[in-house]
Amino acid sequence: MSTVSRQFRLAARPVGLPKDSDWEYREEELPDPGEGEFLVAVSHISLDPAMRGWMNDARSYIPPVGIGEVMRAGALGEVVASRHPGFAVGDHVSGAFGVQSHAISDGQGVTEVDPSKVPLPVYLGVLGMTGLTAYFALLDVGRPQAGETVVVSGAAGAVGGVAGQIAKLKGCHVVGIAGGAEKCRHVVEDLGFDACIDYKNEDVAAGLKTHCPKGIDVYFDNVGGDILDACLARLAMHARVVICGAISQYNATGKVTGPSNYLALLVNRASMTGMVIFDYVERFPEAAAELAGWLAEGRLKAEVDVVTDLATFPEALLKLFRGENTGKLVLQVAA
Amino acid sequence: MSTVSRQFRLAARPVGLPKDSDWEYREEELPDPGEGEFLVAVSHISLDPAMRGWMNDARSYIPPVGIGEVMRAGALGEVVASRHPGFAVGDHVSGAFGVQSHAISDGQGVTEVDPSKVPLPVYLGVLGMTGLTAYFALLDVGRPQAGETVVVSGAAGAVGGVAGQIAKLKGCHVVGIAGGAEKCRHVVEDLGFDACIDYKNEDVAAGLKTHCPKGIDVYFDNVGGDILDACLARLAMHARVVICGAISQYNATGKVTGPSNYLALLVNRASMTGMVIFDYVERFPEAAAELAGWLAEGRLKAEVDVVTDLATFPEALLKLFRGENTGKLVLQVAA
Repeated sequence: MSTVSRQFRLAARPVGLPKDSDWEYREEELPDPGEGEFLVAVSHISLDPAMRGWMNDARSYIPPVGIGEVMRAGALGEVVASRHPGFAVGDHVSGAFGVQSHAISDGQGVTEVDPSKVPLPVYLGVLGMTGLTAYFALLDVGRPQAGETVVVSGAAGAVGGVAGQIAKLKGCHVVGIAGGAEKCRHVVEDLGFDACIDYKNEDVAAGLKTHCPKGIDVYFDNVGGDILDACLARLAMHARVVICGAISQYNATGKVTGPSNYLALLVNRASMTGMVIFDYVERFPEAAAELAGWLAEGRLKAEVDVVTDLATFPEALLKLFRGENTGKLVLQVAA
Repeated sequence: MSTVSRQFRLAARPVGLPKDSDWEYREEELPDPGEGEFLVAVSHISLDPAMRGWMNDARSYIPPVGIGEVMRAGALGEVVASRHPGFAVGDHVSGAFGVQSHAISDGQGVTEVDPSKVPLPVYLGVLGMTGLTAYFALLDVGRPQAGETVVVSGAAGAVGGVAGQIAKLKGCHVVGIAGGAEKCRHVVEDLGFDACIDYKNEDVAAGLKTHCPKGIDVYFDNVGGDILDACLARLAMHARVVICGAISQYNATGKVTGPSNYLALLVNRASMTGMVIFDYVERFPEAAAELAGWLAEGRLKAEVDVVTDLATFPEALLKLFRGENTGKLVLQVAA
């Protein structure tokens, strides 16, 4: 038997927003799995802002995707052939299978998931890297205490939505920042944030003044740019700024806009700290168990935005940068 | 008896570099000290980059100096009249006496100093706020470990020179950044840094690459701007950036230049933290004792740059922003 994998490979390093010509679509015949390998039929692909960074030829926390390589992505799938003792045909698995319909894996970094417990895409969201990122970035780097004020940008996005919900679980006053009235409604009514500032239609600084009367103790930044600056200007003493992402800057063609108000760190004896989820691998099981518990108890909502058809990948990815998704954006391989 | 104090008062909020018209020189008759007060004849005034910030009408770590008020400054002097049980005529004292020749004090924040141990101006430098700032910013915020690479900007300045020397005492590889060949020579030959990059005549990024082959573990920033950006680009994993000052930005008439490379914090899981020396008041005695010990043992050099004549204050202050001082800049009141 032989399998054809439909793949998106990186064809060129994008300048600004990735365009169609930055991708090469290819139908590649995969070899049969060798000893210790298995074949996965990919069902769902995680679409993440971080993918934009992986396309740049720059030193980062992970090597860039090489030109001509299948685009890196977290994904879910079902094992359809196996010569690996730990994975059997029919197993549902999560791993870095890339933007393609089928993948050969040796099992490294692959975990089994159980579709009877939660809908599959949730394993890319709250119960995947997204939820883990929110968990460790908020709790380990932000270290919020009950009663403190936590502000989360990208609050209607995948990581932000989870981070704010966890901050609520920890007894914090939680203010989101999101783009558009509908997203803000969702953040407050569905996710339970105390307030949400619509940066597209409101003055963010004024909103922060209203909703954070005692200043911001933890700012969970997913966006960078002007919103980071507005939050810096509103820090409380000894505030912690968590740099989780900077989606407003990922497609910059010139220099990244640095935070002009960074001296607020000095005035407030505050810190700004970056995090990368890969550092927490050893603690994934404990965190995943806690997240699953909250989810099962209904204390955490798992918002997933599923778009369909692998062929639409180049366009689907852009939804992230256009702010068109609410919650975790997942590409279902089937049309 | 009555005493005339020659004073510099803040006349206007400066735009950019302070100019003569931002100051009012006044000869003010002081009242006799009341019960619990004493009169100080000021001998030496500390000139600090931070003074520029105190002139702005902005929320900061300390209220701004009001228009019409004597300019705030740390200073040394001799008690010449006293109705305070803790201070006797002839005592040498250190306190926030301001930019003036005489001051009435109630003793708050005033400490006695001993001119027989070290030259008086050293009590404004290594054994004053300058040394304490370097000590706590480096050791408490930067937390350098032996063998790590520490980079200090403003290395020929008051705080930077002490910070780098302490880092050397702690067994670090220490690289300074300073403006001009003579300053760099001083930083290496006199202060004992391992290397110094002349930002006026060298490519800072290239210099950092040469002198920090394993990256920067602690960056002690006194300057902000392009140099902060160059250092961010060279951070090691888990690096600590200490925001102690930003002299390149204090006279900016537009927006402060934020660090464009701040996402290096994410890539390297690094932190950038501000500090204000006033938070460490309770630990001043322990730190001052340790600094005095190092000084007595000859393990720490106390570089002081004394300029004379209170009347020259407006011009003397600008030496800081023109980079004309080496070590602690002190204004001797006598001509």
